[in-house]
Amino acid sequence: MRILGIDPGLGTTGYGLIEDKNFKLIEAGIIKTKANTPIQDRLKKIFDELSCIIKEHRPGVLVLEKIYSHYRHPATAILMGHARAVVCLACGAHGVKLINYPSTKIKKTITGNGHASKQQVQRMVQNILKLKIPPEPVDVSDALAMAISYCYMNKGSGMKFASQISRVKGQDI
Amino acid sequence: MRILGIDPGLGTTGYGLIEDKNFKLIEAGIIKTKANTPIQDRLKKIFDELSCIIKEHRPGVLVLEKIYSHYRHPATAILMGHARAVVCLACGAHGVKLINYPSTKIKKTITGNGHASKQQVQRMVQNILKLKIPPEPVDVSDALAMAISYCYMNKGSGMKFASQISRVKGQDI
Repeated sequence: MRILGIDPGLGTTGYGLIEDKNFKLIEAGIIKTKANTPIQDRLKKIFDELSCIIKEHRPGVLVLEKIYSHYRHPATAILMGHARAVVCLACGAHGVKLINYPSTKIKKTITGNGHASKQQVQRMVQNILKLKIPPEPVDVSDALAMAISYCYMNKGSGMKFASQISRVKGQDI
Repeated sequence: MRILGIDPGLGTTGYGLIEDKNFKLIEAGIIKTKANTPIQDRLKKIFDELSCIIKEHRPGVLVLEKIYSHYRHPATAILMGHARAVVCLACGAHGVKLINYPSTKIKKTITGNGHASKQQVQRMVQNILKLKIPPEPVDVSDALAMAISYCYMNKGSGMKFASQISRVKGQDI
């Protein structure tokens, strides 16, 4: 099964698609929209591009971060959250199962530390997916981390944390 | 031209469609979704029903409230804001012009008081549209108030407030 992780943002939405059985990277990238474009056109671009990715790769699950509860600027957070909404809608429109994890759970699963930096997550994602270079930008590595987290949490392999796997493999983390 | 006002909510989205030249009510109602339904299906229902309304009536403008900046529960506000996002997306998807007004501007235009109650707005909407009974629920009267506000702000008639019109007509407000 293919797992699609999404890190939604009005300006940059990161996505990462992996095969669950062998942690193989299928495709990853970003959907960008310009700040001076009307909100309805920005959301349409995110929805349309994401719909194309879903139709092409038919993921069995889409993984998103849970909504964080503390924001300094709620109005901005709500507007940024609009990108998250169209990702949810894309799941509904294309019949993809939607999974939410809190950010700390994803970080803990990937690095062993629920408060790891984005760079730590990025390096671990690189190791787990055996990539030659770190996935860039962090929107992509965060999206891949979500997809990887789902695989670990649903493998029932006794391995709770991706970090344990990498350590077993003796990779330089 | 037809003007569509929308009061988005995850549970209840109110809509109201009027003809701008004669303040004639074309159609109004609510789109309801159940709390125990997955978010992606709730958003899909709102998007699909709104798309049907737009395709049937072809409004020239869709009016929404601006995002309010102070919330007690930001995470809840973001989730509720997801309904607003799919309304914006529907504008992008169907090529409808999107207009945002602050809540106080709408209330001021309709009642003369930027802090009027929902019931005051409801009674004024009833008067302006010459309805026999007040539009119910308030999600509908708020949506109609948005559509009416757009008409007043773009008539260039010298009338700034809908309330002035009703007073001229000597109606019981």
